[in-house]
Amino acid sequence: MPALKITIIGAGSVGFTKKLVSDILKVTEFEDIEIALTDINAHNLDMVAQIIRRIVDVNGLKTTVTHTTVRRKALEGARYVMNCVRIGGLEAFADDIRIPLKYGVDQCVGDTICAGGILYGQRGISAMLDFCKDIREVAEPGALLLNYANPMVMMTWAAINHGGVKTVGLCHGVQNGHRQIARALGVPMEETDIICSGINHQTWYLDIRHNGRQISKDELIAAFERHPVFSVQEKVRIDVLKRFGFYSTESNGHLSEYLPWYRKRPEEIMNWISTDEWIHGETGGYLRYTTENRNWFETDFPMFLDEAGKPLSTYERTDEHASHILEALETGRVYRGHFNVKNGGVIKNLPADCIIESPGFVDRFGINMVEGITLPDATAATCSASVNVQRMSVKAAITGDVELLKQAVLHDPLVGAICTPDEVWQMVDEMLVAQAQWLPQYADAIPAAKERLKNPKVKTREWEGAARLKVRSVEEMRDADARKKGKTDLGKRVMS
Amino acid sequence: MPALKITIIGAGSVGFTKKLVSDILKVTEFEDIEIALTDINAHNLDMVAQIIRRIVDVNGLKTTVTHTTVRRKALEGARYVMNCVRIGGLEAFADDIRIPLKYGVDQCVGDTICAGGILYGQRGISAMLDFCKDIREVAEPGALLLNYANPMVMMTWAAINHGGVKTVGLCHGVQNGHRQIARALGVPMEETDIICSGINHQTWYLDIRHNGRQISKDELIAAFERHPVFSVQEKVRIDVLKRFGFYSTESNGHLSEYLPWYRKRPEEIMNWISTDEWIHGETGGYLRYTTENRNWFETDFPMFLDEAGKPLSTYERTDEHASHILEALETGRVYRGHFNVKNGGVIKNLPADCIIESPGFVDRFGINMVEGITLPDATAATCSASVNVQRMSVKAAITGDVELLKQAVLHDPLVGAICTPDEVWQMVDEMLVAQAQWLPQYADAIPAAKERLKNPKVKTREWEGAARLKVRSVEEMRDADARKKGKTDLGKRVMS
Amino acid sequence: MPALKITIIGAGSVGFTKKLVSDILKVTEFEDIEIALTDINAHNLDMVAQIIRRIVDVNGLKTTVTHTTVRRKALEGARYVMNCVRIGGLEAFADDIRIPLKYGVDQCVGDTICAGGILYGQRGISAMLDFCKDIREVAEPGALLLNYANPMVMMTWAAINHGGVKTVGLCHGVQNGHRQIARALGVPMEETDIICSGINHQTWYLDIRHNGRQISKDELIAAFERHPVFSVQEKVRIDVLKRFGFYSTESNGHLSEYLPWYRKRPEEIMNWISTDEWIHGETGGYLRYTTENRNWFETDFPMFLDEAGKPLSTYERTDEHASHILEALETGRVYRGHFNVKNGGVIKNLPADCIIESPGFVDRFGINMVEGITLPDATAATCSASVNVQRMSVKAAITGDVELLKQAVLHDPLVGAICTPDEVWQMVDEMLVAQAQWLPQYADAIPAAKERLKNPKVKTREWEGAARLKVRSVEEMRDADARKKGKTDLGKRVMS
Amino acid sequence: MPALKITIIGAGSVGFTKKLVSDILKVTEFEDIEIALTDINAHNLDMVAQIIRRIVDVNGLKTTVTHTTVRRKALEGARYVMNCVRIGGLEAFADDIRIPLKYGVDQCVGDTICAGGILYGQRGISAMLDFCKDIREVAEPGALLLNYANPMVMMTWAAINHGGVKTVGLCHGVQNGHRQIARALGVPMEETDIICSGINHQTWYLDIRHNGRQISKDELIAAFERHPVFSVQEKVRIDVLKRFGFYSTESNGHLSEYLPWYRKRPEEIMNWISTDEWIHGETGGYLRYTTENRNWFETDFPMFLDEAGKPLSTYERTDEHASHILEALETGRVYRGHFNVKNGGVIKNLPADCIIESPGFVDRFGINMVEGITLPDATAATCSASVNVQRMSVKAAITGDVELLKQAVLHDPLVGAICTPDEVWQMVDEMLVAQAQWLPQYADAIPAAKERLKNPKVKTREWEGAARLKVRSVEEMRDADARKKGKTDLGKRVMS
Repeated sequence: MPALKITIIGAGSVGFTKKLVSDILKVTEFEDIEIALTDINAHNLDMVAQIIRRIVDVNGLKTTVTHTTVRRKALEGARYVMNCVRIGGLEAFADDIRIPLKYGVDQCVGDTICAGGILYGQRGISAMLDFCKDIREVAEPGALLLNYANPMVMMTWAAINHGGVKTVGLCHGVQNGHRQIARALGVPMEETDIICSGINHQTWYLDIRHNGRQISKDELIAAFERHPVFSVQEKVRIDVLKRFGFYSTESNGHLSEYLPWYRKRPEEIMNWISTDEWIHGETGGYLRYTTENRNWFETDFPMFLDEAGKPLSTYERTDEHASHILEALETGRVYRGHFNVKNGGVIKNLPADCIIESPGFVDRFGINMVEGITLPDATAATCSASVNVQRMSVKAAITGDVELLKQAVLHDPLVGAICTPDEVWQMVDEMLVAQAQWLPQYADAIPAAKERLKNPKVKTREWEGAARLKVRSVEEMRDADARKKGKTDLGKRVMS
Repeated sequence: MPALKITIIGAGSVGFTKKLVSDILKVTEFEDIEIALTDINAHNLDMVAQIIRRIVDVNGLKTTVTHTTVRRKALEGARYVMNCVRIGGLEAFADDIRIPLKYGVDQCVGDTICAGGILYGQRGISAMLDFCKDIREVAEPGALLLNYANPMVMMTWAAINHGGVKTVGLCHGVQNGHRQIARALGVPMEETDIICSGINHQTWYLDIRHNGRQISKDELIAAFERHPVFSVQEKVRIDVLKRFGFYSTESNGHLSEYLPWYRKRPEEIMNWISTDEWIHGETGGYLRYTTENRNWFETDFPMFLDEAGKPLSTYERTDEHASHILEALETGRVYRGHFNVKNGGVIKNLPADCIIESPGFVDRFGINMVEGITLPDATAATCSASVNVQRMSVKAAITGDVELLKQAVLHDPLVGAICTPDEVWQMVDEMLVAQAQWLPQYADAIPAAKERLKNPKVKTREWEGAARLKVRSVEEMRDADARKKGKTDLGKRVMS
Repeated sequence: MPALKITIIGAGSVGFTKKLVSDILKVTEFEDIEIALTDINAHNLDMVAQIIRRIVDVNGLKTTVTHTTVRRKALEGARYVMNCVRIGGLEAFADDIRIPLKYGVDQCVGDTICAGGILYGQRGISAMLDFCKDIREVAEPGALLLNYANPMVMMTWAAINHGGVKTVGLCHGVQNGHRQIARALGVPMEETDIICSGINHQTWYLDIRHNGRQISKDELIAAFERHPVFSVQEKVRIDVLKRFGFYSTESNGHLSEYLPWYRKRPEEIMNWISTDEWIHGETGGYLRYTTENRNWFETDFPMFLDEAGKPLSTYERTDEHASHILEALETGRVYRGHFNVKNGGVIKNLPADCIIESPGFVDRFGINMVEGITLPDATAATCSASVNVQRMSVKAAITGDVELLKQAVLHDPLVGAICTPDEVWQMVDEMLVAQAQWLPQYADAIPAAKERLKNPKVKTREWEGAARLKVRSVEEMRDADARKKGKTDLGKRVMS
Repeated sequence: MPALKITIIGAGSVGFTKKLVSDILKVTEFEDIEIALTDINAHNLDMVAQIIRRIVDVNGLKTTVTHTTVRRKALEGARYVMNCVRIGGLEAFADDIRIPLKYGVDQCVGDTICAGGILYGQRGISAMLDFCKDIREVAEPGALLLNYANPMVMMTWAAINHGGVKTVGLCHGVQNGHRQIARALGVPMEETDIICSGINHQTWYLDIRHNGRQISKDELIAAFERHPVFSVQEKVRIDVLKRFGFYSTESNGHLSEYLPWYRKRPEEIMNWISTDEWIHGETGGYLRYTTENRNWFETDFPMFLDEAGKPLSTYERTDEHASHILEALETGRVYRGHFNVKNGGVIKNLPADCIIESPGFVDRFGINMVEGITLPDATAATCSASVNVQRMSVKAAITGDVELLKQAVLHDPLVGAICTPDEVWQMVDEMLVAQAQWLPQYADAIPAAKERLKNPKVKTREWEGAARLKVRSVEEMRDADARKKGKTDLGKRVMS
């Protein structure tokens, strides 16, 4: 019998699943485990399973790999569950971007807060409660859910408070920002230490040390401003650093959509973003990226399968948290990372009920969060605006309360800076109607919303947003790749 | 020797001082006290003293009335101190309105938060700390400061946390809204009971009963919408009631400037306000009103002096809190009201350090706040946005930290919805320079601000705002009064 | 249909029921209500009902009086429920006193904490959860439970946290102590104001004012020491006042059994108590008193019935809280009292989860607790020792965890000062076995306890306690009454 | 210039100083530092300095060693300060044991709480505030105080809240208990992991794992009961383990004096203790031990000097926290330990203001405490009784409030189980008078105490305690050592 079982929900995100599993199999103690893959897309799942099995075979491991579209079966006896789903897939995602644009809300990613992120949360939480029910009922007692699915905070909030499952939310934003800071400073990442705290996607580098010496605000600003790439790609982040005194974890595109100041005037958006990669602020950038990669089984599958055939000894374990957490919990080797958990009293100036991202040390006893952090006032104010939106969004998702959902969207910083209440009310109606199939909790409210939309009170705008790029075909992408060589981010894929 | 001494700072606000004193002298036990008046304007102070002495004389009271421009002398031995000042007077106030307008920020009152209110707080806190020092040093030990000065929350916050003086903030907003609700419902105010909670100027009627029966949201909306006057004057309040489910204490004009949604598009402001009285949303409405009344000693003094000659038995005591609090503290007769105090744990979902306005009962032992209130989510979210602004503003006022002051203004909901960070930074510089004489804590930072303004980064707009009325001369006002008969609100006057 | 329904559980406590009902019927607005009486003793219930009906008839009221031994029926539609039961009656109560005595624990009342009170709580909570279930299911939604049953704190704790019923605990200790203080000072009670705070039976007069002037510790000590009666009867209370600086609500006998210092040496107990009334410290005093009065239907019934025939206009309403709370809730007339509720943040230096007794104001909106009390350190330390015992006791009562029950008794201040752990373990076993019929939650654990008792580890002592009086017959009591004239306290009766 | 400076106050504790310094010098990065030794005893200090210098010389290190009796000079520029003092020395310590014995209080160590520990705290805090003043004024800004001096909790509480110095309290109790548990289980310490939490000297092993497998209560009991040595020496600890379900950090003798149950009956004390080593419960055991070793410069000095001549490469670094903390702070190598800090919100069911001992991870950013621990109820109740005593003791020590000091002693669990209030009051008077020279804060109160002692109210007892051993001469000790070979504990020495 395997020593322990790990289940990945939404395993069809091929690149991410391959990375997670490869990392785990690099841990000596984890050879003899079961990895169970599940996804609602049987075709994708099969291909991912091929890749994972090849890794196991080539390296002669005793690991058991199973795959099934029956989620509950995959969860039976699991000690660890990783959630990587994207509910509604590309279809709902496209509406998360398209409909808000009609009301002037120009999002880059739309998966955290803002109109798109809030609706995404409504879809996700509905599914999350189902996952949690299965975990409570058939997984190993005390199983740990590692949630990678966005909107991270809302999903984790729902799982902990309403799903009754021990959950930690995980993201690579802190590591990416850490890496970037080291590059800006021109020093090896290993020589730098950081404390990062806040809420997911709005976590702040509160303390940065190079070989123990604290890096000042001015030093950091100078480093970023003289960096040839970051100074172009990270304008919002650098501007916020100058105003607040602290660098944010979040990519330029993401950060710009959480704040009321940078994307509200379409004519000025291009001053703040860069379109050389989707993440730096492009309108619907992540939607374009995932759309282009929806046919990964044509483009990337051969490459992944090929890679899977190489011995693990040549694979460099990533700094993705999951494998490190599992290693610490099972072996007691201490791991320090930044984790998404319920605040309690960790961050003194954020509410106790919210989901924070803050430093912790993992050992055999669990994820030990470091107590006693106070965020600088401006960062706390910014985070608390999002927390209020998240709290209303989660409650609305749980109860199916349309009024509360609209209040949540109304209080979103960027939406609130752009729209009037009438516009918000109509926009949410439109999104609810468009995504009704993934929103069972609002079933009773949809007819009235439809009725209201027959006589719309506010005019909408037809445009593509201030910084829209065209979705490329597979061929166009191949050409581009051939030219550029070295695609940077395989990220998470969209479930179809 | 008088039984106790009451000192009024800023007593030159003639109408308000007369009201406060008349209320107090209606309490039988308070005949034999000393009332000490102080103001920096000797002329106004003399006239106010004439009025108050006349009341005492005509009614044959044993009350001692003293007046002096030496504040510290007026405070000697005082058990109660009432603060009614307006630091910077009309001159600074005009800049609180004028400069933000250049950056698109169109305020109605500008004395709470928003750019004007924040700068007003910087001026006031500087003075407040001086008052507190005097009170600590020369007033009766344990003296109570009743603060009426705006920005109420910031002033009270500074007095409690930095002034070391027992302080309660007082406002008539809750009573005015209560009265209005009763009128809308068409029932006597005495038959209605309310719980109102939140922060000053954003307090929410959480529970309304008519003879014990709870009034529903829908009933309240219907009452306001069918009311011929309120439905015209209170459009923002009614809209917020419909969105949030709760009516706000604050007048239409005030409320519209605390939220990001109603005043950000100049072309739509007129849809939400009424210009028949300054308080319903007029651009710089309160500035116009106070400017017109700056020569009250010409227009109103004879009227006040005449009224002062009437016996107190014909005077109807108002529902202004001050006299009722004093009566409860001195006699033990319980008084229920809504008071501004440090939150502690009273409102569960606002931070412990903020200044809330919430129900309390006053008896001999003090102001007993009612424990255990949870604000509905949308009202809490709205309040917490203001609290964050207030916290940064107070800290900036205490420390003279320009960066923090700018962060405060940047996070203001209406400013944040209208301006970019660059605009905020320049606007604050401009306000600091214009009001430097009242901002000693920023003395060191003014030269650099002046320097920056020599090369302004952003363009500004010259306009009067979306709903500006002309300031009338004394003659024009007399004519208007003659026509209208019955000016409604004498409010607080401006110190010159 | 009656305007509202009030149900009294344990109505067979004739004197108390008559007092409660008479008080209520003195409120004009309450004439037209239903009073439903229930008790498990049909005979007592009948006689009580006769008395109540006679009051209604004689005064020509429209009040409906019903009575039934079927509790659930009595609770149907009730808006207010008063709980006056004593689970286990005299039989279990006798064991609460007798068994601890074998282990050296000499209790006076034994109904709060200490070995007797903890076991009493185990019996009561088991019943309380049944009452709460009925209330949730058949009473008016939002019904309020007014709990008079001891152990007050534990019963209220269980009802609030585990019964899911809105509950307030009520006691007359604060009023009695207040009355006594006024007498000691030689002034009318009406001229004195008090703040009393802590936990039930260990509430402390934190502030005492006579016509507004604060009474000092030394003044209070002097007043009690020179009082001819109190100086003899209240030795423990006065000693604690001298040590701690604050007077306790609790009677001498009660207080002596909550503390480790006054009853641990049998040879010294008589130095601290008085046996002229049971409440001043007599061993098993309240047990003797209730045993003597168990045949009240012989002795007191004729007297009560006679009194019931007098017009209510001659009846002076008492200061028992219940009728005043109901009046405030239904009419909005504010009532200030001291109430037992969950702490939350009211008392800053007691745990949030405990049941405190502290000042509150009742109005239409409920029982409004006064926020922000800090107990002096010694009183807080004393209360917190009891709170720890109560928390363990309640948890044990809910879960039937014998080990936790023993830990609770072990941590009791008086038990802990007298017994060894071995003695505590055996004493609890003995009590569990003796009272098994009222302790369904421990059913599974009783056999093992019996088994352990077959080979007792510790020796026990056969004695009557240090200050035991003989139980008198009805005749002896009549003789004594004839001599003394004016029995002071009819208190609560025991349910058979 | 040395990289950093470490100052040891009370460096005359030769064995402990030698251990601390040797541990530190084992860290490669710490070769080039300054170690400053200070003590009020110049003779001892000289000898200790000889030893430390020899270590440096023999190993050819660049370390600077300075020594001075002028504390302030030793603290100049220090980054780390270690406090190892014992205020009052053997003389005061003897009274800490002798006087309580007269009132029946039989202590083993008397340095934590109980009558001796509380008075010890009064002496220590007075000195601690002086140390803190020096540190604030002349040490490196942000210097860290590592406090080893007892009473640990009170000293650390005073330093943090009243001394204004960043402080961590350190003890080896957790490691010693951990080692003992591993021995009892018969497994290597390295294979076991523990979570220990509570307050210093009453910390509880909440979770024990052997290679990840959780050890159950029953398993642990069995392990201790079958262990030939522990079953004899640790009777109190094992009994508490059986009652509470958790093993305590504290030695048998110590634990027995914090609880009301084991030392209150003199005739039963011998059932619970062992006299083979002082720490297992002997009356005044630690006093005897330190008295015997007061002439260490005769007995141990040659041995220490000899040891100091051996190369550090042969020295095995101990698990004393200090060197590991310094290493982690300076190099970023993570260290997990159990530290004494202000609770804040770390332990949910102890007060926020108390000093807890709980797990933390040290890295460059400081001592990161693990958030979110809830103590089992019985352990929390036991700890909270001590916390109440500590809070009153610290406040009394700071303010010199005799009444509060007596309340503290009255609430001590063991004192409260043994004494009456009259006895406590007299005992404290006697201790204050005897130790007046070390208690400047009580100077004004001493004369009245002396006056009261002229007419003592209570009789005292002359005895040696229930388990007293004779103090041995140097010769007797040499003989015993020769026989036994291998003295176990050199511990901390007493300052003369």
